[in-house]
Amino acid sequence: MVEPGVQAAATSQPLDGEPVARAAVVGASGFAGALAAALSWRHPQIALEVVTARSDVGRRLDDLYPRYRVPLELEPFAAGRLAQSADVAFVSYPHGAAAEVVAELRSHGLRVVDLSADFRLRDLALHERWYGPHTAPGLRPEAVFGLTELHRAEIADASLVANPGCYATAAILALAPLAREGLIADAVVDAKSGVSGAGRAATETTHFVSVDENVTAYGVTGHRHGAEIDQELALLGSEARVTFTPHLLPLDQGLLASCYVTPTRALTTAELAELYADAYDREPFVEVAHRPPGVRDVRDTNLASVHPLVGPGGRVLVFCAIDNLWKGAAGQAMQNMNLMLGLPEGTGL
Amino acid sequence: MVEPGVQAAATSQPLDGEPVARAAVVGASGFAGALAAALSWRHPQIALEVVTARSDVGRRLDDLYPRYRVPLELEPFAAGRLAQSADVAFVSYPHGAAAEVVAELRSHGLRVVDLSADFRLRDLALHERWYGPHTAPGLRPEAVFGLTELHRAEIADASLVANPGCYATAAILALAPLAREGLIADAVVDAKSGVSGAGRAATETTHFVSVDENVTAYGVTGHRHGAEIDQELALLGSEARVTFTPHLLPLDQGLLASCYVTPTRALTTAELAELYADAYDREPFVEVAHRPPGVRDVRDTNLASVHPLVGPGGRVLVFCAIDNLWKGAAGQAMQNMNLMLGLPEGTGL
Amino acid sequence: MVEPGVQAAATSQPLDGEPVARAAVVGASGFAGALAAALSWRHPQIALEVVTARSDVGRRLDDLYPRYRVPLELEPFAAGRLAQSADVAFVSYPHGAAAEVVAELRSHGLRVVDLSADFRLRDLALHERWYGPHTAPGLRPEAVFGLTELHRAEIADASLVANPGCYATAAILALAPLAREGLIADAVVDAKSGVSGAGRAATETTHFVSVDENVTAYGVTGHRHGAEIDQELALLGSEARVTFTPHLLPLDQGLLASCYVTPTRALTTAELAELYADAYDREPFVEVAHRPPGVRDVRDTNLASVHPLVGPGGRVLVFCAIDNLWKGAAGQAMQNMNLMLGLPEGTGL
Amino acid sequence: MVEPGVQAAATSQPLDGEPVARAAVVGASGFAGALAAALSWRHPQIALEVVTARSDVGRRLDDLYPRYRVPLELEPFAAGRLAQSADVAFVSYPHGAAAEVVAELRSHGLRVVDLSADFRLRDLALHERWYGPHTAPGLRPEAVFGLTELHRAEIADASLVANPGCYATAAILALAPLAREGLIADAVVDAKSGVSGAGRAATETTHFVSVDENVTAYGVTGHRHGAEIDQELALLGSEARVTFTPHLLPLDQGLLASCYVTPTRALTTAELAELYADAYDREPFVEVAHRPPGVRDVRDTNLASVHPLVGPGGRVLVFCAIDNLWKGAAGQAMQNMNLMLGLPEGTGL
Repeated sequence: MVEPGVQAAATSQPLDGEPVARAAVVGASGFAGALAAALSWRHPQIALEVVTARSDVGRRLDDLYPRYRVPLELEPFAAGRLAQSADVAFVSYPHGAAAEVVAELRSHGLRVVDLSADFRLRDLALHERWYGPHTAPGLRPEAVFGLTELHRAEIADASLVANPGCYATAAILALAPLAREGLIADAVVDAKSGVSGAGRAATETTHFVSVDENVTAYGVTGHRHGAEIDQELALLGSEARVTFTPHLLPLDQGLLASCYVTPTRALTTAELAELYADAYDREPFVEVAHRPPGVRDVRDTNLASVHPLVGPGGRVLVFCAIDNLWKGAAGQAMQNMNLMLGLPEGTGL
Repeated sequence: MVEPGVQAAATSQPLDGEPVARAAVVGASGFAGALAAALSWRHPQIALEVVTARSDVGRRLDDLYPRYRVPLELEPFAAGRLAQSADVAFVSYPHGAAAEVVAELRSHGLRVVDLSADFRLRDLALHERWYGPHTAPGLRPEAVFGLTELHRAEIADASLVANPGCYATAAILALAPLAREGLIADAVVDAKSGVSGAGRAATETTHFVSVDENVTAYGVTGHRHGAEIDQELALLGSEARVTFTPHLLPLDQGLLASCYVTPTRALTTAELAELYADAYDREPFVEVAHRPPGVRDVRDTNLASVHPLVGPGGRVLVFCAIDNLWKGAAGQAMQNMNLMLGLPEGTGL
Repeated sequence: MVEPGVQAAATSQPLDGEPVARAAVVGASGFAGALAAALSWRHPQIALEVVTARSDVGRRLDDLYPRYRVPLELEPFAAGRLAQSADVAFVSYPHGAAAEVVAELRSHGLRVVDLSADFRLRDLALHERWYGPHTAPGLRPEAVFGLTELHRAEIADASLVANPGCYATAAILALAPLAREGLIADAVVDAKSGVSGAGRAATETTHFVSVDENVTAYGVTGHRHGAEIDQELALLGSEARVTFTPHLLPLDQGLLASCYVTPTRALTTAELAELYADAYDREPFVEVAHRPPGVRDVRDTNLASVHPLVGPGGRVLVFCAIDNLWKGAAGQAMQNMNLMLGLPEGTGL
Repeated sequence: MVEPGVQAAATSQPLDGEPVARAAVVGASGFAGALAAALSWRHPQIALEVVTARSDVGRRLDDLYPRYRVPLELEPFAAGRLAQSADVAFVSYPHGAAAEVVAELRSHGLRVVDLSADFRLRDLALHERWYGPHTAPGLRPEAVFGLTELHRAEIADASLVANPGCYATAAILALAPLAREGLIADAVVDAKSGVSGAGRAATETTHFVSVDENVTAYGVTGHRHGAEIDQELALLGSEARVTFTPHLLPLDQGLLASCYVTPTRALTTAELAELYADAYDREPFVEVAHRPPGVRDVRDTNLASVHPLVGPGGRVLVFCAIDNLWKGAAGQAMQNMNLMLGLPEGTGL
């Protein structure tokens, strides 16, 4: 009797010749890390060599995540071992725990995409307000904020990419075309996320019975992804004031950001359409939809689906749907890694 | 072999002596009508005599809705039969179809709570813009908007109550304490509803596969419940500009209104608390919660759970959770009917 | 700003004069214990005086379970305090932990309904095989198996009732009429349960993401509720061989037992109907449905809905739907408690 | 503003040189037909040329099914047009409607995989008992039952393949290794399916509110997929008596068959393991799992995951999980089409 998935797995990694890079996933037992491992495993030009975890060491990844069919055993983290086996790493540790590990990997020369928040915020004081003291501040200057659509060139050259938060990804993609033109006077972002966004930890919050047939706002007095949104919109020249409020929904993967913008001047639907077409027509992973997207439309894809419109009273509404584990985490991370490796950014996605 | 629910049903209507009123439910095959029938059936001082429907005539209500255990057969609508059997009626027809039926019942002297939108809007032009020509305009002046917490005295005296829409109920209860004091400069209402709010019609929209693992905005260029919100806030003296956008969620019963208010002046948490306590401390069906409510907290109850707070940047956030079929429809209707009959308004709820 | 539910709660316990008994719920932070508390709180002739828990001491029950609106604070367990405050107790501890607590309460004279498995199995060896050493074996002889429909008379006289397991309840009610007549040659019970049956512990199993869009069998090499089923069917004279397999479903409350019986002789539909009518026509909480029941039909009720039929090839199929937290746990417990107190068994249900 | 998915779609069909075949999907607006279209669209060696539908003609497939991103417009069925544009066709019409269309396509020389039941049953009388008169009986002899694992060689040579029912697929794969050895004395198949198995028609059955928080058995007096199971097990030499009962679950895609077998002789776990390894070790789309599979494990894949064990009392239990739309419909259809075209059977899957 064979192990589950071995057959499928064996045929799912047909590398096209020599791999361009050998990869490790650090923190592969969590939802985002496991998907990063799955995407690496299936990638035609990356060889996944090592998966590590803090919990569940010794279990096979296809035992924890049968549907991903990655037949590797979770190892404890050991920088030396990784340095020998891998050229690049995805780090998917909780905020606070990632920075040290990233520093070790960088000191061994690995190029890293970090899925935690540890290197996202440029302002150290702001970082410490949300996340506490930083354990590898010296590394901060080399980190690039990994929203590909905004920082493509820097990402291609980076050795450390700070993958954005899922909420920030959806909100920034929704608002960037307006922010760039200074069109946002005021904005409310009401975001709705599936439970995988809350992570694999089994808690009262993630218990099926807490979530099922329910919807609740949380982080209402301020959520740390708000700081990422503000940072990136400011870089685009916006002085917008954004109120961001997340809600937890009874579904697995999917995130919808509903954005309500008071524009600095009256906008027409045609102007909006042109603005978003200009911004996204050449983007492989952003589609401008002709109606409000549902999160089902993008599930298990790296796509962001954006729909802007002029609503009643001239308010501008923008809806952006992503899969929080893909474009909101591991898919985005692979998009960045492809760029870092000089591959077409959609390879394996 | 007995019919389902007969035993349970037989013990679920122990009238306390002579009933205060005999009731009919017109349109009892829909979700709201069926619950109105169930609440009437269990009511200790109302005798449910007739249930009618446009479809499903001849089927028993406990065949359509086993969990309500109302062992009555659906009849076709016949005003004369109703006039003989009932003193009061709940009408739960679609918008447009209700007005005529209400007019017939009123002409026979029955007091009516109408769950449709046909008598909600005071401004006829506005009504016709959203719903088309009105078929019983002469009756409009006697209708009272049935949000008990705002119009209790008039409802008690009314012969025709226009039960509010579910979205309007949640939004108005969330915003009324601010509106009354002229504190709303601008407001966004992002509302999330379970599928029962979309009614019993089997469509592409209500198909399980369309809703499951999904969330989508709809009515984004304007939703007719917005007119009810505007009307009632204006009556309270507010000139607020409200943007209202509904979303459909993968759950059955429950509605959350997340309201984002730019206040006309800075407010403190203590002021807010006092404002909402003043408004709702004596209300039997509104509770002021100490954290953002989930819709599970109020499922299968007539409660609205409201939580106001001062958010980042001074924006005021108010969350209001209701069960769309209860406080958003049939529960509210029974609360009004109790008032009309001189009973304590929570009787049977 | 008032606490959630205080207003509602204050009106939800209108005792009809002096209470017949003062009650405690031991282990009220779990799903079944919390519902036992809610049912006691709303009960017209029981005064709920104390709720205790092992975890969450100091939290209010309406903070943990807003929808139950029981405004009592969880206390640590102290037998003396309970003996002073209460006449009867519901114990809702995990298997193994309950026996000691029950023994203490009994030594202080309280009558107890124990929702754990500690006193369900008459055969000590069998108990120890499934649950390990028993910590209060001396108390075992006075325990009565609390499936009301089978042991009503003994329950009325009992001082200790062992409330049956949820799966056992559904399976036994489905099969008892056949077992009693020796009609079961062989039986398969394929049971499907909502997640609340797995308890409040946050684990990989109960995480939303594990359950959502999934269905899995578990306990496939033998599940301890099987022993309860065998015991009770044997007491009815059956020598049936029952294979029982539970499955976990993506829903909250609800349990369906699908039973496939090879009868000892050919049966007709009419015979079956008569058999089940004889068994259940006078039972207030068992209804014989005219079609296969859905678990929605009985959600939040103490009803079991049973549907027997003769299937293809003469196999007898019996479906039984219950709410695992009500008839499968706390509702059944209250039914038993009512009997023990000499009240109509449906009081407060 | 571009249409949704156009960009993604444009990159999702990179044909490897000249296509091996041009394909049409007849009935592409249903769930299985739409997935057949999506799989054809993404296939590296098939060019999808035409999609037809009976309803929704003129709508684009990526408007109906955004997540599949097939930017083709639904056309009315016209055999001549199809004969010019396509070499092969997937037919996904309801039972009864398919046969005529298949006959037309065959008369034009197209090779067909028919996803309906019209050509599955070899016994005409049996077919007519379940489905009524056959409209193309002359074509029946050339049809091959399309469960690849049982009929691989005949499928490769076939011009008409009758793709099996979803329930039949799971049950037969679970039981075939036992049937082949004459080891089944008696079997119960309790099957659980997600709602996509019930098709796209919006009905009371598929309404979200009917399914959510529910589980129900249906087809309890006999379901037509039972005839397929019996036929195929008999072909393997089994005289087993199988009772098959389907249940509807609150999930989208996924089907679990729980099979309870009374073996003709005692079996050991080791024997079972060997039997299933022999049957499936070389099968690319059947995996023998080391624990009971969940339907999540195979969602959006063409895999069947099978787990056999010897249960209490010597009963043999076999669990088989598939995605009803993939291995239970369109994935299986593509596996067959690949064989018919001389391609590796997993191409594009």
